[in-house]
Amino acid sequence: MESKVSEADFSLKKSDLSFFFEPQSVAVIGSLREGYFGGYVVVKTLLNAGFTGKIYPVNPSYQEVLGLKVYPSIKEIPEKIDLALIMINRRSVPNVMRECATKGIKAVIVVADGFAERDEEGAKLQNEIVKIAREARIRIIGPNTAGIVNSANGLMPDPYEPGYEKVKPGTVAICAQTGMINPQAFPYADLHYGVSKICDYGNKCDIDECDMLEYLESDPATKVITMYLESVRDGRRFLEISRRVTAKKPVLILKSGRTKEGAKVSASHTGALAVDDQIFSAACKQAGVIRLEKFREFFELPKIFSLQPLPKGNRLGIVTFTGGVGVLAIDEAAKYGLSVARLSPKIAKKLNAIFPGLGKTVVDIGPPMAVNNYMTIYSDILKTVLEDDHMDCLFNVIWTSPFKEFVEEYLKFYGEMQGNYQKTIATWIYGPSIPLVNELSSGLEDLGFPVFSDLEMAIKALGIAYQYSDRKKGEA
Amino acid sequence: MESKVSEADFSLKKSDLSFFFEPQSVAVIGSLREGYFGGYVVVKTLLNAGFTGKIYPVNPSYQEVLGLKVYPSIKEIPEKIDLALIMINRRSVPNVMRECATKGIKAVIVVADGFAERDEEGAKLQNEIVKIAREARIRIIGPNTAGIVNSANGLMPDPYEPGYEKVKPGTVAICAQTGMINPQAFPYADLHYGVSKICDYGNKCDIDECDMLEYLESDPATKVITMYLESVRDGRRFLEISRRVTAKKPVLILKSGRTKEGAKVSASHTGALAVDDQIFSAACKQAGVIRLEKFREFFELPKIFSLQPLPKGNRLGIVTFTGGVGVLAIDEAAKYGLSVARLSPKIAKKLNAIFPGLGKTVVDIGPPMAVNNYMTIYSDILKTVLEDDHMDCLFNVIWTSPFKEFVEEYLKFYGEMQGNYQKTIATWIYGPSIPLVNELSSGLEDLGFPVFSDLEMAIKALGIAYQYSDRKKGEA
Repeated sequence: MESKVSEADFSLKKSDLSFFFEPQSVAVIGSLREGYFGGYVVVKTLLNAGFTGKIYPVNPSYQEVLGLKVYPSIKEIPEKIDLALIMINRRSVPNVMRECATKGIKAVIVVADGFAERDEEGAKLQNEIVKIAREARIRIIGPNTAGIVNSANGLMPDPYEPGYEKVKPGTVAICAQTGMINPQAFPYADLHYGVSKICDYGNKCDIDECDMLEYLESDPATKVITMYLESVRDGRRFLEISRRVTAKKPVLILKSGRTKEGAKVSASHTGALAVDDQIFSAACKQAGVIRLEKFREFFELPKIFSLQPLPKGNRLGIVTFTGGVGVLAIDEAAKYGLSVARLSPKIAKKLNAIFPGLGKTVVDIGPPMAVNNYMTIYSDILKTVLEDDHMDCLFNVIWTSPFKEFVEEYLKFYGEMQGNYQKTIATWIYGPSIPLVNELSSGLEDLGFPVFSDLEMAIKALGIAYQYSDRKKGEA
Repeated sequence: MESKVSEADFSLKKSDLSFFFEPQSVAVIGSLREGYFGGYVVVKTLLNAGFTGKIYPVNPSYQEVLGLKVYPSIKEIPEKIDLALIMINRRSVPNVMRECATKGIKAVIVVADGFAERDEEGAKLQNEIVKIAREARIRIIGPNTAGIVNSANGLMPDPYEPGYEKVKPGTVAICAQTGMINPQAFPYADLHYGVSKICDYGNKCDIDECDMLEYLESDPATKVITMYLESVRDGRRFLEISRRVTAKKPVLILKSGRTKEGAKVSASHTGALAVDDQIFSAACKQAGVIRLEKFREFFELPKIFSLQPLPKGNRLGIVTFTGGVGVLAIDEAAKYGLSVARLSPKIAKKLNAIFPGLGKTVVDIGPPMAVNNYMTIYSDILKTVLEDDHMDCLFNVIWTSPFKEFVEEYLKFYGEMQGNYQKTIATWIYGPSIPLVNELSSGLEDLGFPVFSDLEMAIKALGIAYQYSDRKKGEA
């Protein structure tokens, strides 16, 4: 069904998307009844997130909502509107689109679903709104979308109750063809995730992955882009744009519909045509795109780029408190071309002086843990390891005891370390208390040390950082 | 270095290990100074865990610890001792072993490290204690071990402060060649993990993976065995025993040292010889062992066997709140031979009557979530899906809103469902609040519904359950 829609030849293809992400005024067209979904939630979330522009709720049955005047229709709004959000029954969408056109609105997010992803009638309605948009030079995100976020100006028009006020500003842009990446679905607040922009492009009747890549290419707030895709609308354009973008910023892509069965189901729920997975893989490789394998990678791996420097080479150091983890890490590292660093003789000697037997390939802090001044020894070990110029990146395993004082001591030490090293550090924490692991993870990430939920995830983070750095070197 | 040790030909090879796991009396030989490690911690942990046997601390410098009489040496203890734990300087271990022999102790755990894994002197000491043990028919776990646990009798002689009182009794046995699986390292308490036995066999100077497999084979408390290995001492015996055990209980093995670099480092820290990874893989396949890939799988995947029935076939149902997750799940399922269930026409019709468009391959509860009586609709959907006899197992995605009342409503519903279905269910939960996700996970697991931390982990759980069930069928 997508093919029909994509016949539309937008002359505004390369237009700026700043009306979407930096609107001075937003019209919210939808139900204003209190609940977990709808226009009421959008208005409330915009207010809570401290949106810096003006908000115009539109609904014929209300006079006021959350202290804001409600307008019976778009045309009654006295001011200029940069962005409209439409959350109404699908059959009413074309009429509201016409009102948007009359009002001169240039950016519309159609949250409403039931279009090309639902049935033939929905596909026809989708074509109709595309036609209206084309004539009026309106750009559309959606339909069937949970919308967008800009963490810098409080633009978080979330149609689902997110349960917290603000997405933490940061440098990671997140794009997907699904609402599950939007703030209502994922634990950004708990994951200490710094985000620049979020976009769920939904059915992609107009704006798609290529438009977002182009926009984010020149977005100064965005340092790394992570993307979930089920389909690619224009393979040639995607290859051309992503090649250009990856020369500036890392692009991470998780693509589903890799198997025949998966692709078939994908087509039925997005109304999009599947792309051959081998062709897509080849295109990614050619374009320097980092291809992801698992859902969790999609939102965890960008941290290595947003928080750490790129490694200068492939020599991996390992600090762990058990040899077993060291061996698992080495096995995993081989997948990405990382090679275990041989400690320089000077550093090995220094480590052996701190504790007998420490100066090995895997620096095992297990044995010294039985000693009572453990934190002093730990600090000495880590500082010494990070001095080694035979090493480019470090897999750093921290074990948190069940006692809060250890968390505090670790945070004090890492606070002192901040900025005093040039290696890429990926940390994995475990211990018997999940709340303490979470507390330490949170604290470390606030200090700029990314923490990964898995041993393998931490190694992969270093692996893709090395591969990206290697690629950039090749171009320089 | 292991080769020297394994030359020892134990005539007690197949002896019962019940002195280790069900001792009536335990002698604890080590430092009684308060701290995070040592004999004091062992005694405290045994007391806190409610150990049902007698505890005899041994130390010449103390008269009493934690209300218990302390004995200056083993020979002064007036009663029979079933199990001794040795946590002293490596050079003193042979002498204490001799005292154990004189006392007639048959089971010794040597927690002390610095043996074959450290250096030549350590290897000699290890040979010496093996010789003493052999002559006195003492069995040894270790050296270089964090010991064992039996959740049924409070035997948790943990040398490291675990920070909580008891490991929850359950049916999963955990064995490893590393201390990081012991209660002080991993968040059992927060993971709601029901454990039968734990064993860290350390350097395996006597008791090894084969002995543990044999012991657990006939342990009625153990329903599933998960094992971390770096080396296999006797390949032929391992193949023979594991083939026999897997006919009764699933055996999951994570083995490191797969790459050349990894194997080399493994040899240096355990003093064990590496085994060729391809040979090991072939042996696992032949023996029906489920081979794991990632560290997290090692302690998460056993849940599917301990909490759920085996699937009768490979037909996978999917309930999710976003189509994208459905497609990712289908892609992943193909790896394990799972095939997407086609809903029976009756069930599809029933689902469409609950909400238009629901009766598809991927049951997408996203659209009905915008409706206000969501929990009623959700309950109807899940009950209907589980009635379908075209389905053997279910990938069940739950989204928790940021509001606590949803957690309560989900738990109420799943409480009613308990026992009313025959399918294998693997659940993945996400939502914007990690504390609420954890709370719901905990509650669901208490009701017998295992929750996995990843989409891919949940699918793999169903995949290996299907493969194991298929294997058992083949034998029947």
